[in-house]
Amino acid sequence: MTVELKEKLSNWRRDLHQHPETGFLEIRTASIVASVLSELGFTLEMGKEVMSEKHCMGKPDEKVTAEHYAWALDNGANKAFVETFKEGYTGIVATLKTNIPGPTIAYRFDMDALDIYESDADDHVPVKEGFRSQVDGKMHACGHDAHTAIGLGLATCIAGEKENLCGTIKLIFQPAEEGTRGAKSMVEANVVTDVDYFIASHIGTGVPHGHFLAANNGFLATSKLDVCFRGTAAHAGGSPEQGKNALLAAAAAVLNIHAISRHSQGVSRVNVGELHAGSGRNIIANHATMKVETRGEHAAINQYMKEQVKSIVAGAAKMYQVDYEIKTVGEAINCTCSEELARTLYECANASPDIIHAELQNDAGAGSEDATYFMEAVQKNGGLATYCIFGTELAAGHHNEKFDIHEATLLSAVQILYKSVYKLLAEAGC
Amino acid sequence: MTVELKEKLSNWRRDLHQHPETGFLEIRTASIVASVLSELGFTLEMGKEVMSEKHCMGKPDEKVTAEHYAWALDNGANKAFVETFKEGYTGIVATLKTNIPGPTIAYRFDMDALDIYESDADDHVPVKEGFRSQVDGKMHACGHDAHTAIGLGLATCIAGEKENLCGTIKLIFQPAEEGTRGAKSMVEANVVTDVDYFIASHIGTGVPHGHFLAANNGFLATSKLDVCFRGTAAHAGGSPEQGKNALLAAAAAVLNIHAISRHSQGVSRVNVGELHAGSGRNIIANHATMKVETRGEHAAINQYMKEQVKSIVAGAAKMYQVDYEIKTVGEAINCTCSEELARTLYECANASPDIIHAELQNDAGAGSEDATYFMEAVQKNGGLATYCIFGTELAAGHHNEKFDIHEATLLSAVQILYKSVYKLLAEAGC
Amino acid sequence: MTVELKEKLSNWRRDLHQHPETGFLEIRTASIVASVLSELGFTLEMGKEVMSEKHCMGKPDEKVTAEHYAWALDNGANKAFVETFKEGYTGIVATLKTNIPGPTIAYRFDMDALDIYESDADDHVPVKEGFRSQVDGKMHACGHDAHTAIGLGLATCIAGEKENLCGTIKLIFQPAEEGTRGAKSMVEANVVTDVDYFIASHIGTGVPHGHFLAANNGFLATSKLDVCFRGTAAHAGGSPEQGKNALLAAAAAVLNIHAISRHSQGVSRVNVGELHAGSGRNIIANHATMKVETRGEHAAINQYMKEQVKSIVAGAAKMYQVDYEIKTVGEAINCTCSEELARTLYECANASPDIIHAELQNDAGAGSEDATYFMEAVQKNGGLATYCIFGTELAAGHHNEKFDIHEATLLSAVQILYKSVYKLLAEAGC
Amino acid sequence: MTVELKEKLSNWRRDLHQHPETGFLEIRTASIVASVLSELGFTLEMGKEVMSEKHCMGKPDEKVTAEHYAWALDNGANKAFVETFKEGYTGIVATLKTNIPGPTIAYRFDMDALDIYESDADDHVPVKEGFRSQVDGKMHACGHDAHTAIGLGLATCIAGEKENLCGTIKLIFQPAEEGTRGAKSMVEANVVTDVDYFIASHIGTGVPHGHFLAANNGFLATSKLDVCFRGTAAHAGGSPEQGKNALLAAAAAVLNIHAISRHSQGVSRVNVGELHAGSGRNIIANHATMKVETRGEHAAINQYMKEQVKSIVAGAAKMYQVDYEIKTVGEAINCTCSEELARTLYECANASPDIIHAELQNDAGAGSEDATYFMEAVQKNGGLATYCIFGTELAAGHHNEKFDIHEATLLSAVQILYKSVYKLLAEAGC
Repeated sequence: MTVELKEKLSNWRRDLHQHPETGFLEIRTASIVASVLSELGFTLEMGKEVMSEKHCMGKPDEKVTAEHYAWALDNGANKAFVETFKEGYTGIVATLKTNIPGPTIAYRFDMDALDIYESDADDHVPVKEGFRSQVDGKMHACGHDAHTAIGLGLATCIAGEKENLCGTIKLIFQPAEEGTRGAKSMVEANVVTDVDYFIASHIGTGVPHGHFLAANNGFLATSKLDVCFRGTAAHAGGSPEQGKNALLAAAAAVLNIHAISRHSQGVSRVNVGELHAGSGRNIIANHATMKVETRGEHAAINQYMKEQVKSIVAGAAKMYQVDYEIKTVGEAINCTCSEELARTLYECANASPDIIHAELQNDAGAGSEDATYFMEAVQKNGGLATYCIFGTELAAGHHNEKFDIHEATLLSAVQILYKSVYKLLAEAGC
Repeated sequence: MTVELKEKLSNWRRDLHQHPETGFLEIRTASIVASVLSELGFTLEMGKEVMSEKHCMGKPDEKVTAEHYAWALDNGANKAFVETFKEGYTGIVATLKTNIPGPTIAYRFDMDALDIYESDADDHVPVKEGFRSQVDGKMHACGHDAHTAIGLGLATCIAGEKENLCGTIKLIFQPAEEGTRGAKSMVEANVVTDVDYFIASHIGTGVPHGHFLAANNGFLATSKLDVCFRGTAAHAGGSPEQGKNALLAAAAAVLNIHAISRHSQGVSRVNVGELHAGSGRNIIANHATMKVETRGEHAAINQYMKEQVKSIVAGAAKMYQVDYEIKTVGEAINCTCSEELARTLYECANASPDIIHAELQNDAGAGSEDATYFMEAVQKNGGLATYCIFGTELAAGHHNEKFDIHEATLLSAVQILYKSVYKLLAEAGC
Repeated sequence: MTVELKEKLSNWRRDLHQHPETGFLEIRTASIVASVLSELGFTLEMGKEVMSEKHCMGKPDEKVTAEHYAWALDNGANKAFVETFKEGYTGIVATLKTNIPGPTIAYRFDMDALDIYESDADDHVPVKEGFRSQVDGKMHACGHDAHTAIGLGLATCIAGEKENLCGTIKLIFQPAEEGTRGAKSMVEANVVTDVDYFIASHIGTGVPHGHFLAANNGFLATSKLDVCFRGTAAHAGGSPEQGKNALLAAAAAVLNIHAISRHSQGVSRVNVGELHAGSGRNIIANHATMKVETRGEHAAINQYMKEQVKSIVAGAAKMYQVDYEIKTVGEAINCTCSEELARTLYECANASPDIIHAELQNDAGAGSEDATYFMEAVQKNGGLATYCIFGTELAAGHHNEKFDIHEATLLSAVQILYKSVYKLLAEAGC
Repeated sequence: MTVELKEKLSNWRRDLHQHPETGFLEIRTASIVASVLSELGFTLEMGKEVMSEKHCMGKPDEKVTAEHYAWALDNGANKAFVETFKEGYTGIVATLKTNIPGPTIAYRFDMDALDIYESDADDHVPVKEGFRSQVDGKMHACGHDAHTAIGLGLATCIAGEKENLCGTIKLIFQPAEEGTRGAKSMVEANVVTDVDYFIASHIGTGVPHGHFLAANNGFLATSKLDVCFRGTAAHAGGSPEQGKNALLAAAAAVLNIHAISRHSQGVSRVNVGELHAGSGRNIIANHATMKVETRGEHAAINQYMKEQVKSIVAGAAKMYQVDYEIKTVGEAINCTCSEELARTLYECANASPDIIHAELQNDAGAGSEDATYFMEAVQKNGGLATYCIFGTELAAGHHNEKFDIHEATLLSAVQILYKSVYKLLAEAGC
C-alpha cells in the first residue's frame, strides 16, 4: 500500500500544484478534497457550516469569487461538490466517529496558494516534470499543496481502520492561511470545541530534510491591515490648495508607522509592505492604499503595535483633512505548544524510519500562523495542541518563485501523523 | 465650402476621438494626417527628419511601440504612411513654399491623447453620437483631436490658395505635448529656425465660448521627473534588518519634496502625483517609483525646484542605502508672447463673426506647455511668437472623463488662423 | 532750530539705543516718551486706556514684566510716568486738539527692540561712538529707536504751532511691533476710530539713502503661532513603549507644515523657525515647542495656511497620543495704501531738499507689519491710510547684529512728516 | 569599628551629595578621594597616568573645565591633590601591593553626578537632613556618591590588613560613567591588564532592599551620538529659498532614525532625546543639534543601529544641502559576567547578615554601563569579571529629582566586597 499511497500523494500534490487557488477561492481544491473524503467514508461539514461568515478576514468580493468559480468549473472542479463552495466558503471538516468512547483528535491542513508567478526556468522541477502552475501569477510557493495531499493521505490511512479505532478523528481543511485570514472563522464556527488533541503542521520552514520538530513555539502574533486614504483631486499647477492630498497623508503615515517605539517586553515588528497612490503626475493624489502588518512576541505587544498604527493613520488623515479606513484583513496570535502532546509526536517521529533527527521544541522564529487560533481554543477548553514541522529539502525558500519540496517528505509526514493517531488513542487508554 | 469644411472638421475630429493615441504613439493619427496633407499638396518632412531622437523625453520603449504599431495597422492607419511612423517618431512638418519672397509663418498643432478611461454615461455626447473612444483607458480628454482637425482644416483652406500667397507656410504636427515631452525634439531638429511668425493654440482652457485670447503668457516652466528607488527585499518578520527599504526612502522623499521652500522671485509648484512601491505586505519593499513634477514662473525657479528634488532624492536614497534613478521625462519653459503678433491675431479674431469677445493678453495661469520651446527658439532668432486660445463650451474640464468641446469652435478657429495667414503676409508687405 | 532738533533726535535715538526694550516691556521708553510729550503740551492717553488687554498677543508673563520694571526703575525711567506702564501696557496716544474744525491726522511710531546681541566690533558705530546696547542680548536692530525719535521730533515741531493748525493731530506710540503683536490691541481700544488720515512709516528696508517711498503695499498677512506638544517621558532603553514622544510629534509636524500646498491665488509662506524638545538623550521626550509663522498675500491665503498648520499639529499630536496647544502670539493683515494719501506724502518728499528720489508705490516685498490693522480700520471708516519708507544707509540688514542707520535720515523724516501735516490740512481746506 | 565606619560612609556620601560634579569634572571629588586613599597608605596613580586622553568621550571643553576648577577650589577641594585633576582627567587607581604572590583583584567605583535639579520638597530626605545639592541643576541622582563612599569604605577596611593579605588589590575610581564616557579611557590606559578578578557594582536599579544580585548580564551595548546640522539662515518671508534649512534636515533625520528597522538577532533601541534648532520664528534655521543614542543586545546590533543613524544623518544633510557632524560622546558594550566569580560574590552575600536574599544572575534589563569595557578587557586576558547589584530602598527612581538611597546599604555593600577579597584570595590558595 505504501507504494500506492506514495503515488497518490504525488498525484494529488501535483494536480493541486498545477491549479493553485488563493485564499477563500480554493473552490476547485475543496471540491476535490470533499470528493476524496466523501468516498473514503468521512462525514463532511462544509462551507458556512464550518466557517463564521463575519470572521472571514480579507475575503475577495463577490465579483472576484464568481469569476473564479467559473474558472474552477472549467478547470476540473468536482461537479458533485463545487457548488457547495461557490461563494468562497471553502473550509471542510471531515469526521470519523468510531462510536467507541475516546478522545477527539483533530489535524489541520491548509489549502491556499499565493499570488506569485511561478518560475518557468528549465531547471525548476515543476517545469521539468510538467506540473508547473497553469495559472499565471498564482503558485503553490509555500507547500500548502503538499499539506492538502498529506491530509488526504492521512484520511486514506485512517479510513480503512475505523473498526480498529476509538474516539473521533477530525480532519480540518482550512482556507486562507496566507495572510492569516481563514482559521479564525473556523474557530468561531466551533469546529474545535470538542477537540482533545489538536495537531497542525507545516512542511519545510528551514528544517532540514529528514528532521522533525514536534513543537514550534516561535509564531508571532500578527495583524494584517489594509489602510486607505481618500482625499480630493486638484490640478497640481492650477489650484493645488484645493486638493486634499492622500499621497502625502500616506507618506506621513508610512514614516511614522515605522517609527513606532520598540517594546521592552519582547519582539515587535511593523512593515508597510506596499503603497499605491495617485493617478497622475499633475494631479494632487486623491487616493492611497497601504498594506501594513504588525507583529508581537505576545498578543499584547501586537495589540500595542496595532493601536499605534491606528493612531498614526488617524493622525495622518487629520493632518491632510482626508478620510481613511483601516480594515483588518488577517490576524493571528502567538501560542505555546502543549509539551505533553509534542512529546507524543516527537516519539512517533523517532520511531519513524525516515526521520534521522527529531527535536522536541523550538522557541525561535519570526513568522506567523493562524493555526494558533485553533490551538488557543483547544487549550482553553483543556485540550492539548501542538504545531510540528516536517523537514524537507527546499529548492528555494518559501514564497520564492522557485520554491519546491522533496516529495519523499509527503509519505513520511503521513506516517508520523498516522502513528500519532494510534499512540494518542493508546495513551488515552482505548 | 464652409459647410463642407465644417463636416470635414467634425469627421476628422470624431475619427481621431475614437482612436486616441498617447505621446510618441500617434502612429495611426500621423499616418492619416500625412495622407491628407500629402493629397493637399504639401511637402512633408516626417519622423526623425523633424525630431531629434535624443531629445524625445519619456518615449515608450520598443516593445510598447511595436505593439501599438500592430494596433494601428489593425485600426485604420493609412497604409501609405504608417511605416514612416513605426518607431514612434510621429512628428510631421508640412510646408507650402510659394516661391514668392515673403516671411515664413508656422502653426503648431498637437496630436496626442491621454491615459484616461472615457465616460460611458448616456449623457456624454461622444456616447450619444457614437464616437466614444474605442480604446479602453485612452481618451482625447484635452482636445488635441480638435487641434489636429483644425490643423487639417487650415491646410485645406491654404492648399487651394498657393498662388495667392507669398513666403512659406509651415504646419507643424507635434507628438507628445502631454507631459511636455515632444516639442523639444522638433525644436532641436531645427524645424523653426527659419520661422518668422509662430502661432500655437489651444481650445478651451476655461476661456468662454465665443471668446478668443491672443496671447496666453501664464505658462509655467516645468520638469517632469520619474524617480525610482531600488533596495533589497527581506522578510519583514524574519530578518527585516537585511532589507534596504525603498518604500521608506520614497516616503521620506515625498514629504521632503513637498517641503521644498517657496521661492521669493515668483510662483513655484511641486507635486508627487503618483507613488507605487513594494510587492507584498510581509516583505521589505525593494522598489518604489514616483512621478514628480516641478514648475516655476521662470525657468530659473523651475530649475531651483528641480535641483532641490534631486538633492532630496539623493538624500533619501542615502538614508536607506538604496539606489535611485531620476529621469527627466518631460520639460517645458515659460515664455512671453510677442505682443505685436498677438495684436494681429487679436484683430483677426475681432473681425471674425463668431467671436463675441477677444482679449489681447492674459498673464495669469498655472499650466505648462512645451510649445514654449518653439516660441523661445523663434524669438531668439528675431521672429515673433504667440500662443492663443479658442474659447469653447466644455462639457467638463480638461483631463476629465466627460471632457467634450463644442464642435462649432473648430470652424471658427480655422477661420481665425486662416485670416492670420493673409494678415501677416499683408503686414509683411507681400 | 533745525540744528538743535537734529541734536535732540540723535540724543533721543542714542539713549533709546542704549536701553533697548522688547515688546510690551517698553517701560523705560514709554516713560520718557510720555514725559517729553507731556512737556510739549500734548494730551496723553496711556496704557490700558489705549490698549485692549485681551488683544495683546504674546505678552510676557507677570514675572518677566515685574523684573523688567525693576530694571527700568534702575536705568533711568522717568519717575513721573513709569508706574503707568508697570504692567507692560506701554502704548501712548498723544493728542493735539486745535479746537478749530478739521480732519484728524494720525502718525504711528513703534518703540520695541529685539532679542539680539549687539555687535561689539570696533568698527560698529554704536561701539565707536559709545552708544551700544547696555543690555546683553537685546538690541534696537530694526530702527524702532529711530522711529521713536522721529515721533518725538515731529511732536516737537508741531507743539509750537498749535495756533497755526486746525483739526486734530494724534501721535501713536505703539508697543510690540516685532512679531506683529501690539497694533491690534490699540486698534481694538478704538484709538483710530476718529482718524481721517493715518500715516505709518519705517526707516531703511532696503530703500537707498535719500530715497522715499510713499506707499509700501507689499506687506503679507501673517500669523505667529507658538505650538507646544506635551507627552510622557520614559526611559529610552528600559521601557520606550511607555513614552508618548513629543519630539517625534514635533518632527512630524515640522515636515508636514513645510509641505503645506502652495496657493494658486497668491504668495504664501510658512516657517518653523525654532524647535526645542526633550530633556535628555536617554529619555523619550515629553515636551516640544515650536515657533511657527504663516504668511499670505491676502488675509484669506494666510488664513488657509494657518488652518493647515492647525490640522497638521492636531494630526501630529493624534499620531503620538500627545497633548498640544497652539497660541497665536502675533498677527497682521495685508493692506493696500490709499493712493490719494500716498500722493500727498510723495509730494511732500519731492519738496524736501534731502530727498533725491521719491517713489509713489511699491507692490513687491515679503515682510509683515501690524500697522496694517490701523490702516484697515481707518480705511473701513472712510479714512485714508498709507505706509511710507524713509530710505537710509544701513550698516547691515535689519535684525543683524551690526545694523545701524544713518542719523541724517532722522531730521529728513521729521521734515517730510511735518510738511504732510500742513499739506493735508491745506488739502482739507483749513 | 563598624559603627564608626557606618558614620564615615554616611559623612563621605553626604559631603559628595552636597557637591555633585558631572563627568570629567569630578575635581573636588577626586581630590578628596585621593587624599583619603593616600592617608590610608595606598599607592596612587592619577589623571593621565590612568586615562588615555584620546579615549575620553564627550569631555567638556577647556573653558568649562577651568571654571569648574575654580568652583572646586572655592568649595572644599583638597589642596594637596586638586591640581592633579585641574584638566578634568579625574580617574584614580589606588593599589595595595602585598609583596606576597597572589592574584590581582580590582574593584571599580564611579564618581560622577547628573545635570538634574534636586528636589527642594520638605519630604525629600537630603532636604530634611540638610545635605541637598548645593549646586543648582546638578545632583547625585544615580547613587555614584554612594559608590564612591563604598569604595572609600572598602579601602578603609583593607588598609589595616595589608599584612594579612597576599596578591594585589586595586581600587579604581572612574569618572564619567553617565553617558558611558569614562571607562574606555582607563581601559585604554591599561589599568586592568594585570587584573585577575574584576568587580564592578551598582546600588539600587530596582533590586529590593536586602537583596543582592551577583551577576547582572543585561547591559546593552550603546553609542551616544551628538549630531549637528549647519545650514544657511535667510528671511523666511523675504527670501526663504536662499536658506539651507537645518531644522528641516533635523526633523527628517529624527523621523527616519526612529524608523530604523528592528533587528531579528536581538534587542535594539534608538532614541533622539533632544533636539534644539533655529534662532528665530522668521528665520530659516541655520543650525540644529540632536542628542541620539543607539543600543543593541550585542555590540553588532548596536553597530548596525549606529551605521543606520550615520546614513540617515548624511542623507538628511544631503537632502537640505547642509553640513553635518556626528560626534561619538559615549559608548559601551554588552558583556556576560563570569559565572565562577559571580558565584563567589553570591556566597559572600549569602554569608552576610544584612542580606535576606541573594540571586546569582539576571539576564534581563535594558540599561547600559561602560564598566563592560573593563570586564571585556579582563576576560580577554583570561581573568574573571562580574557586575553586582546592592539592593536598596529608593525614594524615587534613578535620575529622578527625588532619588535617594537607604544609607544602611552602604555598610552592607562594603562588607560583601570586603568578604570577597578574602574569599577570592583564599580560593586562589593564598
